[in-house]
Amino acid sequence: MRFQVTPLGTGAALPARGRSPSAQVINANEDLYLIDCGEGTQERLRMAAFNFQRIGHIFISHLHGDHYLGVMGLISTMHLLGRDRELHIHAPQELKAIIDLQLQASGTWLRYPLRFYATRVENGAVLWSDAHVEVTALALKHRLPTTGFLFRQRPAPRTLRKESVHLIPHFRRNAIKAGEDLVREDGTIVPNAELTSDPPPPLRYAYCSDTAYNTDLIPHLHGVDLLYHEATFTEHLAARARETLHSTARQAATIARDAEVGQLLLGHFSSRYKDVRPLLEEAVAVFPATRAADEGCTYPIQRSIVQNS
Amino acid sequence: MRFQVTPLGTGAALPARGRSPSAQVINANEDLYLIDCGEGTQERLRMAAFNFQRIGHIFISHLHGDHYLGVMGLISTMHLLGRDRELHIHAPQELKAIIDLQLQASGTWLRYPLRFYATRVENGAVLWSDAHVEVTALALKHRLPTTGFLFRQRPAPRTLRKESVHLIPHFRRNAIKAGEDLVREDGTIVPNAELTSDPPPPLRYAYCSDTAYNTDLIPHLHGVDLLYHEATFTEHLAARARETLHSTARQAATIARDAEVGQLLLGHFSSRYKDVRPLLEEAVAVFPATRAADEGCTYPIQRSIVQNS
Repeated sequence: MRFQVTPLGTGAALPARGRSPSAQVINANEDLYLIDCGEGTQERLRMAAFNFQRIGHIFISHLHGDHYLGVMGLISTMHLLGRDRELHIHAPQELKAIIDLQLQASGTWLRYPLRFYATRVENGAVLWSDAHVEVTALALKHRLPTTGFLFRQRPAPRTLRKESVHLIPHFRRNAIKAGEDLVREDGTIVPNAELTSDPPPPLRYAYCSDTAYNTDLIPHLHGVDLLYHEATFTEHLAARARETLHSTARQAATIARDAEVGQLLLGHFSSRYKDVRPLLEEAVAVFPATRAADEGCTYPIQRSIVQNS
Repeated sequence: MRFQVTPLGTGAALPARGRSPSAQVINANEDLYLIDCGEGTQERLRMAAFNFQRIGHIFISHLHGDHYLGVMGLISTMHLLGRDRELHIHAPQELKAIIDLQLQASGTWLRYPLRFYATRVENGAVLWSDAHVEVTALALKHRLPTTGFLFRQRPAPRTLRKESVHLIPHFRRNAIKAGEDLVREDGTIVPNAELTSDPPPPLRYAYCSDTAYNTDLIPHLHGVDLLYHEATFTEHLAARARETLHSTARQAATIARDAEVGQLLLGHFSSRYKDVRPLLEEAVAVFPATRAADEGCTYPIQRSIVQNS
């Protein structure tokens, strides 16, 4: 099952340096989930050749413009492209009124159902769950109510033990993988545990942007396979990070290290950094398995080989 | 005095073919006036190296997303760049509530004064007037209330007659150019008309997008030096143009010919046209002095040498 993330924007509030505002696409088994949607996201989705109609959900972390101003344009383009599949938007409650007012002003009646869900800033709150993923909230600390998102793959089927595969009739395999016991023709029962072993634990991806350094997140991020964490500033500007409720690269890496995540991806870089290497170096010193997110590149969400604990 | 226009977006509602949504910049003596502001306009302003702080006014024709969705991002970026100069927005009344709701949701208190003026869809209504230009409304016909904009340069000073220049003391020249009579040392008066001739008539630029074919505009557009007129479709899709209240290229050219304008610039091309030559050819057949607007190119607004009447 495919499970990967493509950041489309790694810039902060002020667009500059060729970086775009926040947006990223999760591909879970060819269903697409958009996280944040800054101005121009539809253009970057097109450049990266994503099929708009595969996007079933948009998750908006908070209502600073660099995280949501692309929503109206995307909604409208989906409409013009003849979409009929419903679109789910998970966002702070105020976004509903903002969307409704603009649909009304432009006299638009969407051709497709738009379902709105107000997000809660509460660790562990289940925001969405379907055949591919479960999405829960992370309580971030920022100047506005801000939600992070934890994507967990649906548990894989149980793994058939090699030594028992020959015992199971072909047509029973899916049921056994789903956890059922095997009833033989003579009526005897083979318990599932003798036939299967636990599948690998579901992969997890966490999105934390925008947020101040927030150690409350650590238990909720424990062991996630890939963590995207904002790194707006270097430590030289730690005071500015504190004031604006953003994080430094070192703080992002400290969270990654203390939560024993698999890998760390940095983003939301301030426009003052033309070159993000100082941010990356600062983080790597604390947590080696760190990369600076590149816009348009796709990162697999996978079990890390190297453990960083 | 510089007077020129730079189209930044020549696409229609659906962004595609590398074309951007509507936006253009009028430069009148180094003061900038933005007409329409589709999503991503701030990025294209940056690409074209316009200084955001020189933009004093934004004129929005109507509230379809491809004409205004870039306003919030631009307002916000001006704020982050430390603007203190006031910004004037001329737009349909509903845009005020849309802006206010979003400023409120993001907890933003702009550092600079934002002045909002509700536009009226009424031919000749004066929307703005300053030292460089006077801007009046054109009543367009579209699915929403839509205003076109007629920019007229401020009248130039009167022209001193060559044969009289020697009569005028240097320190009196500006007053004479402004229309005053000359009082000689012996008390005799030389009337201004003997000293000066009429200056060339002020240059005029008209923006008509979006609109159905609308002959009511002709007297208001008569003799303008440069007309930007939408040409969403070719004549093959004249029925579609009628339904959607857009124009064909031939209709745009017919308006230009009947209004005896100097030159015609076509734009707002439907995404179905990868190549705009068929649109251009259709218009040129009716009105030869026609060009298809190129995004990012600057067109001088000047007296046409070739008259097309």
